[in-house]
Amino acid sequence: MKGLLKWWESRCASSKVLRFVDLNLRGIGQVMFQDNPLSGLLFFVAIGWGSYTAGMPQVAIGGLVAVVAATLTAQWLRVDAAGLGAGLYGYNAYLVGLALGTFLAVSPLWWVYVALGGAVSVVATIGTANVFKTWGVAALTAPFVLTAWLLLLATYAFSAIEGSGLPMTAEIAPLDPAAANPLAFGDFLVGILKSIAQVFLKADLLSALLLLVGLAVNSIAAAAFAVAGAIVAVLTAHLLGAESDLITGGLMGFSPVLTAIALGAVFYKPGVRVALYALIGTVFTVVVQGAMNVVLTPFGIPTLTGPFVLASWLFLLPRQHFD
Amino acid sequence: MKGLLKWWESRCASSKVLRFVDLNLRGIGQVMFQDNPLSGLLFFVAIGWGSYTAGMPQVAIGGLVAVVAATLTAQWLRVDAAGLGAGLYGYNAYLVGLALGTFLAVSPLWWVYVALGGAVSVVATIGTANVFKTWGVAALTAPFVLTAWLLLLATYAFSAIEGSGLPMTAEIAPLDPAAANPLAFGDFLVGILKSIAQVFLKADLLSALLLLVGLAVNSIAAAAFAVAGAIVAVLTAHLLGAESDLITGGLMGFSPVLTAIALGAVFYKPGVRVALYALIGTVFTVVVQGAMNVVLTPFGIPTLTGPFVLASWLFLLPRQHFD
Amino acid sequence: MKGLLKWWESRCASSKVLRFVDLNLRGIGQVMFQDNPLSGLLFFVAIGWGSYTAGMPQVAIGGLVAVVAATLTAQWLRVDAAGLGAGLYGYNAYLVGLALGTFLAVSPLWWVYVALGGAVSVVATIGTANVFKTWGVAALTAPFVLTAWLLLLATYAFSAIEGSGLPMTAEIAPLDPAAANPLAFGDFLVGILKSIAQVFLKADLLSALLLLVGLAVNSIAAAAFAVAGAIVAVLTAHLLGAESDLITGGLMGFSPVLTAIALGAVFYKPGVRVALYALIGTVFTVVVQGAMNVVLTPFGIPTLTGPFVLASWLFLLPRQHFD
Repeated sequence: MKGLLKWWESRCASSKVLRFVDLNLRGIGQVMFQDNPLSGLLFFVAIGWGSYTAGMPQVAIGGLVAVVAATLTAQWLRVDAAGLGAGLYGYNAYLVGLALGTFLAVSPLWWVYVALGGAVSVVATIGTANVFKTWGVAALTAPFVLTAWLLLLATYAFSAIEGSGLPMTAEIAPLDPAAANPLAFGDFLVGILKSIAQVFLKADLLSALLLLVGLAVNSIAAAAFAVAGAIVAVLTAHLLGAESDLITGGLMGFSPVLTAIALGAVFYKPGVRVALYALIGTVFTVVVQGAMNVVLTPFGIPTLTGPFVLASWLFLLPRQHFD
Repeated sequence: MKGLLKWWESRCASSKVLRFVDLNLRGIGQVMFQDNPLSGLLFFVAIGWGSYTAGMPQVAIGGLVAVVAATLTAQWLRVDAAGLGAGLYGYNAYLVGLALGTFLAVSPLWWVYVALGGAVSVVATIGTANVFKTWGVAALTAPFVLTAWLLLLATYAFSAIEGSGLPMTAEIAPLDPAAANPLAFGDFLVGILKSIAQVFLKADLLSALLLLVGLAVNSIAAAAFAVAGAIVAVLTAHLLGAESDLITGGLMGFSPVLTAIALGAVFYKPGVRVALYALIGTVFTVVVQGAMNVVLTPFGIPTLTGPFVLASWLFLLPRQHFD
Repeated sequence: MKGLLKWWESRCASSKVLRFVDLNLRGIGQVMFQDNPLSGLLFFVAIGWGSYTAGMPQVAIGGLVAVVAATLTAQWLRVDAAGLGAGLYGYNAYLVGLALGTFLAVSPLWWVYVALGGAVSVVATIGTANVFKTWGVAALTAPFVLTAWLLLLATYAFSAIEGSGLPMTAEIAPLDPAAANPLAFGDFLVGILKSIAQVFLKADLLSALLLLVGLAVNSIAAAAFAVAGAIVAVLTAHLLGAESDLITGGLMGFSPVLTAIALGAVFYKPGVRVALYALIGTVFTVVVQGAMNVVLTPFGIPTLTGPFVLASWLFLLPRQHFD
């Protein structure tokens, strides 16, 4: 693995084109915190496969267009070389592209919208990072959530951009208990795998496995916390009586998966105390996912990774107690 | 009084159990900014009495469970000893427990929910304090409001946690003028006392008196500003034509009471200029209470002390003009 | 021009009354970033004329009452002399007064409400400036938006303050494509001019021209970016299929106009790179305007200049890349 990466790095050093490819792959890898072009490639293949089998190639294509637009924008804005080289200006754009591909209908203007979203996500990334470095906390996927929420909400005000896949706007009502069925073991397993795939807005099992491999090639700990986070999330959501279809679709678990990786394997040094803290944070992310599902019901937009951002900021701000 | 507190302190110094009790009592005292175990005890008795007479013992019990969970969490997180000793990691949790007892139905999971809320409120307290110390402003009850809002909102997405006492979700509509009756003197008086009790989510008159005594044993100024704030709030709300039932129930006045204490007796040095400033802040808190009642209507959750937090931050941020 | 201003400054230096007038005029000028009493006077006349022809003199009067209340409050709070002298404590109040005159019915309490709004806007200005100077970013019109939103929302909870001109509360629904007609050249021109007038909540063409003159006497660049911003906004909104009535009424363009001036002529040094950046920011402000129109639909309040504030903060936070 190390030899492969070394060879790739030497190739990139002598080719502007390959370096550009490298930057975009690392950007994709950073969706799950991995500064590794191979992780990015595996994630890219996973999303490509998931989009193809779902009959929605525009999702993978939207992600690609947005991340390329972001890398070009970042270079034009002369962002810091270290951050650019680590892919930190690409992952939010990639997610924006996936979201616009998932929730909007393709049209000529859609391409402009995707490129604009990718470019603005870089501006949002610089701004959010500026603000949150005041407290030693990372921007996480907040730039993605903010940019994509604005772009998706605006479709209700514009007739030339159609929100074909957006959730229905509705009044808030308590959940019908009948929607929370006992889950069979197979459902549990599906829910766990789809929780990992839904980090990239996909619901494909093979994609989930590819994503896990992509994590593992760079960090076994990250892969372990992803799986553990998914298990905790599915169990917690089921115990609280969340809608079974959401659980098995991975839609209660993708934010907790990110929280588990962030708290357990990325921003804190692994250990028993941190693992317990990450467990509480992961459980609470399920609560936040429920709360944000409710809050966004009247507005007809999805939570995206908003619950991960909110819960992880909450659990990362007390970082001085874990140094 | 001083002798009594000295004796208690000496007992706590030699007993880990009594020290733990002391920490929790000070936490309860800090709901109204009092770092005094006797104030905390009187507040605790007031809430116990109010919960008992209202036939809802789960409110007082929820508060107790949450504050104990918070103190244990704070110790585990190794928070700063001074803050812990002053009760600063307890008051948000106590309020979370009271809120979950007031608005949710008791069930086996409810206990877990209350303990989780108490623990997370500590994380939120550390985080909020980290952020707001940047501008020399306290966290106030923001950690309570944030944690409780998320926990209450999530009940609409979970069938195993029932929001029995939550307000109905509804569309926003202008207030029917018939709901704003002329108030008799007796109603005014009731509104003033209940405004004080509602700081702890109770509507009992004896509780209100006990709370005032609890304030007065530690700070006559705080008690005076609490009463003055309640009078100003009831008059302002009535003048603006707020719903009379809300006014007499204390629901337009509890946030202004906290603003009056905070601005008039806690964070600024008392004086004529500060008193006038606190008056404007208290009046504006009534407006914010009205605004937040409206904003939260579609979401079916109460404002809690959100109006106090927002208005007081606004009026505390210009603190350099009062030093 | 310079001689006129010099003469005025010498008169103000020897008269407390004229100095007070000067402070208020500069406050009005700062609505469009101009620290110039002549700009302020022209803006004041433009708004007076627009209010008079619309049969709503309370708009201009509300603005005047609020800005005077704000200047008095700022002096009482002993704000910094430089900021006060530049009108930085007046523009938010002036806008609050215009908004309360536009959206509320006049009554005896309305005058108190306007004066309270003007006074509180100063507190909000100090607080917001304190927070945002952490990242080298100005408060913009955030104090206006926050204060006015709270005051307007609260009218739904109070029967003595009537929100006669507020938008209807409604459920969010996608825009009917029939609402987006092809625009004739005359409509385009009207949309561009009204986009400039709507910065001050007016829809009068002569007012728009007076406002442009007011800009030009202090800064040709500001006037040029205002016109360019309006053109970009109207074209973008039409291309995206926004409602034609909103476009021609100037309601899709007033926030982008402010973004264009702020990014292109005020906070960054003019140049090709900055102009392109301002273009992207202006286009994105149209998207944010659409998004905020949608988000506020259930709450029955207007966006005010919220889209300008949000988008401009986003594009000003990366300021280190333009120094």
